[in-house]
Amino acid sequence: MNKPLAISMGEPAGVGPDIALQLYARRSELDLPPFCLFGHLDFLVSRAARLGLDIAFAPVGPAGAMDIFPTALPVSPIEGNVPDHPGRTSPLSGHAVIEAIQAAVDATLDGSCRALVTAPIHKGALYSAGFKHPGHTEFLAALCARGGKPKLPVMMLAHGGLRAVPVTIHVPIRDVPGLLTKALIVETVRVVAHDLKQRFGIANPQIAVAGLNPHASEGGSIGREDLDIVGPAVAQLQFEGLGVTGPLPADTLFYPLHWAQYDAVVAMYHDQALIPIKTVAFEDAVNVTLGLPIVRTSPDHGTAFDLAGTGRASPKSFLAAIAMADAMTATQ
Amino acid sequence: MNKPLAISMGEPAGVGPDIALQLYARRSELDLPPFCLFGHLDFLVSRAARLGLDIAFAPVGPAGAMDIFPTALPVSPIEGNVPDHPGRTSPLSGHAVIEAIQAAVDATLDGSCRALVTAPIHKGALYSAGFKHPGHTEFLAALCARGGKPKLPVMMLAHGGLRAVPVTIHVPIRDVPGLLTKALIVETVRVVAHDLKQRFGIANPQIAVAGLNPHASEGGSIGREDLDIVGPAVAQLQFEGLGVTGPLPADTLFYPLHWAQYDAVVAMYHDQALIPIKTVAFEDAVNVTLGLPIVRTSPDHGTAFDLAGTGRASPKSFLAAIAMADAMTATQ
Repeated sequence: MNKPLAISMGEPAGVGPDIALQLYARRSELDLPPFCLFGHLDFLVSRAARLGLDIAFAPVGPAGAMDIFPTALPVSPIEGNVPDHPGRTSPLSGHAVIEAIQAAVDATLDGSCRALVTAPIHKGALYSAGFKHPGHTEFLAALCARGGKPKLPVMMLAHGGLRAVPVTIHVPIRDVPGLLTKALIVETVRVVAHDLKQRFGIANPQIAVAGLNPHASEGGSIGREDLDIVGPAVAQLQFEGLGVTGPLPADTLFYPLHWAQYDAVVAMYHDQALIPIKTVAFEDAVNVTLGLPIVRTSPDHGTAFDLAGTGRASPKSFLAAIAMADAMTATQ
Repeated sequence: MNKPLAISMGEPAGVGPDIALQLYARRSELDLPPFCLFGHLDFLVSRAARLGLDIAFAPVGPAGAMDIFPTALPVSPIEGNVPDHPGRTSPLSGHAVIEAIQAAVDATLDGSCRALVTAPIHKGALYSAGFKHPGHTEFLAALCARGGKPKLPVMMLAHGGLRAVPVTIHVPIRDVPGLLTKALIVETVRVVAHDLKQRFGIANPQIAVAGLNPHASEGGSIGREDLDIVGPAVAQLQFEGLGVTGPLPADTLFYPLHWAQYDAVVAMYHDQALIPIKTVAFEDAVNVTLGLPIVRTSPDHGTAFDLAGTGRASPKSFLAAIAMADAMTATQ
C-alpha cells in the first residue's frame, strides 16, 4: 500500500467538499488512509475556513501525497473559477468539477492513485459545462474508456455483506420493462460475479436475482417478464457455472437474514435495489461501481445543498466509501 | 368488548390453519382475545392431531364463542370435503375455503364478530371453485358490498408505527404507470387518512406520498408521472386540508427514522411498499385492509406449503394480525 486514494471534490455548492475536509481534519482519530483531493485550491481553502477547520494544504498531487498526508492535505489542483457559495450552484464551477473527475480518473488509471472516491455532483449544475451523461457513473465509464467504447458500468450499493445492484438505474418506471433484456441481465450479473471475485475476494459468489413484477410474476399471472426474460437470463448464467438463483420475489428478498445468504442481490430497477439498502443503512451505505478498470466508490448521498457549509452533514457514508476503497485495494 | 374476533381458516394445504390452532393452544400464555374459527371441523380436528395439539373443539359459532373460548376452540363449522393434506391443494376444498370467508365476513358485517382476521389463501387452488378476484382483498370488498358496487379496498402493511400502502397492487410493473391516475391516488390517500382517524385514533394523520420514478422523477428528467399525476394528486389532497407531503423520492423515505415521521407512506406499486416493510419486519408485519365497512387484518405471509403440517411456521405475523384487529376494535 504505497499509493494514495484519489478523491474528486464534487459539486462545490454541496456537502462533498465539506465532508472531505472534515474527514481530513480527523485523519489521525479515524486512522484514514492517505488520499489526494482533486479540486480547486482557493475554493477548498475558503470552504475549510468557513467550516472553522485548521487545515494546511499541499498542492503536491498524488506523487507527494503519501509523505505529506500526516501534516497537510495533498491537493491535485484544478484550474478554474469556483466560488464558495454553499447551496448555490454556479455556471462558473462546472468545468472545474468535470476536470477534477477527469484528473482523478486519469491518476487512478495510470496507477498514481490506487482507487477513486467521488464526492457527489449535481448534474443540473454541469449541463452548461457540456456534461451529457445520464449520471456520474456513466461519465466515469466513458472516461475509463479513453475514447473507446465504454464497458457496462454496474452500480452496487453495499453495507457490510448486504449488497444490491440495480440492472436499470436512472430511468422512468415506464421504460424499465422495455429496457430489460436477457443480454443486459446476463452481462450485469457476469460483471457482479467477476468483481465479487476479483475485488472482494469471494471465491464462489452466490447471487440472487429479483423478479421484475410482484411475486416474481407469480407463474405468469402477474406479467410475463420474469418467465420470458429474467428466468432465461438466470438459466444462462447457471449454465455458465455461476452461482445464481432467481427470479425471486423482491419483497421477501431483502430481510437482512435472507439477504445475507447471498453475496449480492441483482434487482431490476433503481428503487427495487435502493429502497432496501437505504432502509437498512441510510447513512453509511456505499456506492461501488463494478465493471470499470479502476476501483471507484462514492458515498450514497447527494449534494444536500441545505447542509452545505454548515458542517452538519453526516460523514458516515463518505467515510464508509473511503474505507471500502481502501479495503478493496489494500494490497496495491 | 363482548364479541369475538372472526378468523377464516384459509387454504387447508397451507400453514394458516396450523398457526390458528397453535395460537389457540397457547391462548392463556399469549392472553389472546376470544375468536371464532370459521372452518371445516373434521379437517381442523385432523390437523390439530397431526400437530400434536391437545385441543377441544366447540362448534358453537360466534354466539357461544366468548363463553367457551377458555376451554374449547369455538368453530363456526363450514360444510364440504376438506382433506388434511399439508402442502397439497385439493380441488375438493375450494368451496369450503370460499364459504369460510363468506361466513366470516357476514358474521363481522352483522356484528356477531367485531373484526375479521383472515388466514392466507392460495388463489390457484380456488379457481376451480369459481374464484374470480385478483386477490383476497378484492374478494372481501365484493363480499362487503353484498351485491352492490364494492368500495375501493386499500391494502396497508403495518409494523408498529411504520405503515405502507401500495396504490396499485398485484399488477405487472409494465401496467403501473398507466393505472396510476390522479383520481386513484386521491381516493387511496383519502381512505388512508379516514381510516387512520377512525380506526387508529390518529387525529390529524400525516401521510407521505412516494414518487413513482427514481428520485421522484428529478424535476422531469426521469419521467413525467410525478409532475403530471402524483404532484397534482398531492396538491388536491392538501387543498382538501389533509396532511399530505410528496411526491418524495422513494429510496430515502423508508429509513425507519424518516418513515416514522409519517403515520403512513403511500407508495405507487406493490414492491415499493412491500420491500421496505418486509425488510424491517419480515415475520411480524400485519396486512390491514382499509376502506371496508369491517376491520380486517391478516398475516403478511402466504400459505408456505413447505411448512404446512410441520408446526414450524412462525406464528409472529398471525399473532400480530390478531393483536391489531383486537386493538382496532377494543371498544366494541
